[in-house]
Amino acid sequence: MITDQSSIAEKEGIYDLLPFILKPWNIARFEKGQVVIGDRRQYPFKKAFVSCDTVDEVAQAIKDMVTQGSGPWMSAANALLLVADGKAHEKKRLQKAREVLVATRPTNTAMARRLDRILAETFKSMDAGESAANSIANSLNSMMADIYDSYTLRAKYANSLIDKNDGILTHCFAEAGFILAMAMAYRDGKNICVFTPETRPFLQGAKLTAPSLYELGIEVRLITDNMPASIMSQGHIQKFMTAADLITLDGYVVNKVGTFQSAIAAHYHQIPYYAFAWGVDENSATHESITIEQRDPTEVRTVLGQPITLADIKACYPAFDITPPQLVSGVISVEGVLSADDLAGRRKL
Amino acid sequence: MITDQSSIAEKEGIYDLLPFILKPWNIARFEKGQVVIGDRRQYPFKKAFVSCDTVDEVAQAIKDMVTQGSGPWMSAANALLLVADGKAHEKKRLQKAREVLVATRPTNTAMARRLDRILAETFKSMDAGESAANSIANSLNSMMADIYDSYTLRAKYANSLIDKNDGILTHCFAEAGFILAMAMAYRDGKNICVFTPETRPFLQGAKLTAPSLYELGIEVRLITDNMPASIMSQGHIQKFMTAADLITLDGYVVNKVGTFQSAIAAHYHQIPYYAFAWGVDENSATHESITIEQRDPTEVRTVLGQPITLADIKACYPAFDITPPQLVSGVISVEGVLSADDLAGRRKL
Repeated sequence: MITDQSSIAEKEGIYDLLPFILKPWNIARFEKGQVVIGDRRQYPFKKAFVSCDTVDEVAQAIKDMVTQGSGPWMSAANALLLVADGKAHEKKRLQKAREVLVATRPTNTAMARRLDRILAETFKSMDAGESAANSIANSLNSMMADIYDSYTLRAKYANSLIDKNDGILTHCFAEAGFILAMAMAYRDGKNICVFTPETRPFLQGAKLTAPSLYELGIEVRLITDNMPASIMSQGHIQKFMTAADLITLDGYVVNKVGTFQSAIAAHYHQIPYYAFAWGVDENSATHESITIEQRDPTEVRTVLGQPITLADIKACYPAFDITPPQLVSGVISVEGVLSADDLAGRRKL
Repeated sequence: MITDQSSIAEKEGIYDLLPFILKPWNIARFEKGQVVIGDRRQYPFKKAFVSCDTVDEVAQAIKDMVTQGSGPWMSAANALLLVADGKAHEKKRLQKAREVLVATRPTNTAMARRLDRILAETFKSMDAGESAANSIANSLNSMMADIYDSYTLRAKYANSLIDKNDGILTHCFAEAGFILAMAMAYRDGKNICVFTPETRPFLQGAKLTAPSLYELGIEVRLITDNMPASIMSQGHIQKFMTAADLITLDGYVVNKVGTFQSAIAAHYHQIPYYAFAWGVDENSATHESITIEQRDPTEVRTVLGQPITLADIKACYPAFDITPPQLVSGVISVEGVLSADDLAGRRKL
């Protein structure tokens, strides 16, 4: 699938280092006229796939939460290949497929941006005589290579922060940048142990992070979300590392709820906290502009679909929290490990 | 059941203020020749009871976790009445029942101490011609009255700390002292809202605390264990209050794991933290002597019996954590709200 031989990820052998669920072809691929999507609802208990014959089936799979993280946009991009058949009204049908796919994630503007980039490149190539299928595949491959190169760069910077025998606390599922950093540290003989909070209500820590690290042979300890400070006080944690859904230009880290309280506990124990980021979001100047998504409280009242309390009891589900720059030791970006001051400097760029 | 008309709890109408699971007769009672135990495994979904005809059946119910908190010793004390039949070898059979009951909780010395006190008083009364049944009932009633008086006193001190419109964070199930304090604040029109973390792995917050408060008409919000700091940062919390399994003479609070990280987050947000205690444990001079119980990691890998990750992944389950006196604003005792310095002074008593 990845053909760009000049990519950093290829050169570094990154695709071999990745666990099952993060190998791009297990997230979503186009195969024998179908879009094949890794079914994360069944992971880690089953390594299953959902195969889709039509754009509508792909859209339904995305709505049904078959995949998450980078899975939705990768599935959607592959779905474009289902209508790239060289027949009449191809551009019109591609544009219609884009509408159907983008509608599955009304708040996720990244999917729309990526599909629009692929379609813009494809329409240009088609005008120059290239087939739509070829152009979509090339666009997607080069986009994927860039993304995995970016994971690789950030993982290398993160690995440089890790010392031998480090205990590392994480939160939720910090995606390929973090998992690759752990894989590199392990490969380099650093003898690390990763403490993984289960991350209620969706249990991404238990279902995605812990099995990914376990598959790679890395020492992992599953804990509940109320244990990080207790584990820190026992001297087991030397670094705290998470992903970031958003980093503002004034240095605030927005990530899965729970990140903030572990960052406070890390600061109390003088343990550095690092957040993985793509870069800063030029559209989010300050933390005051952030609106925290409030999700369905039913998720808090249930675990794996089973009720844990009475249905009439009110619950809160703020999906993310905000960690101020005073608690962040560094932001791991493609340009290196940046301080809050470095980030502030970007405003002037 | 409670007949001592001079008790403070009676005078204050405390038994009417308590929710279903904390009314003493719903925890364990002796009725028509049986020990009837409230089945907390089914609460809050069902208000069920387990009826036992023999000491062995009571011991099995305790082992099967039918009850928890003060339930095991109350069930065991009532079980003594099953062999107090006035027939031959009564003292010997009472002593044997004590052995069987104490063996259900090898690490809980409180149960042994309480049964021994009841038996000592009973044997003395028997020697003076009183029936064993009468004496056990009297001993137990007076012990219960003392305990509920102590809950009442501590609840009154706690209520004096609560202001109108306070948001109160708790953790796990802080027993009758805390629930009564909330009931008193509500009765006094203080318009409080109690934020209750679910408390994994056993979910006591979701299953016991939230339904108890809800039953009393108090505003309650269930949250996951990773949300306390996020809720604090939104200005919703003015006090943090928990029970304490142990308080050392040097002022350290030992309580259900998760208490420590919420205490750190409360300190960060300048929110006072208060722990309910019976008093200080004269046997625990310093925090260095504390051994934290490590429980079965299977509990962390499962929720309500369902697996949340692979069975081979290692997990940690420290049952308690230790909060240092610098993070504790006060200890709510029967003698008032004590500071860490007050506690230290006890060493010289």
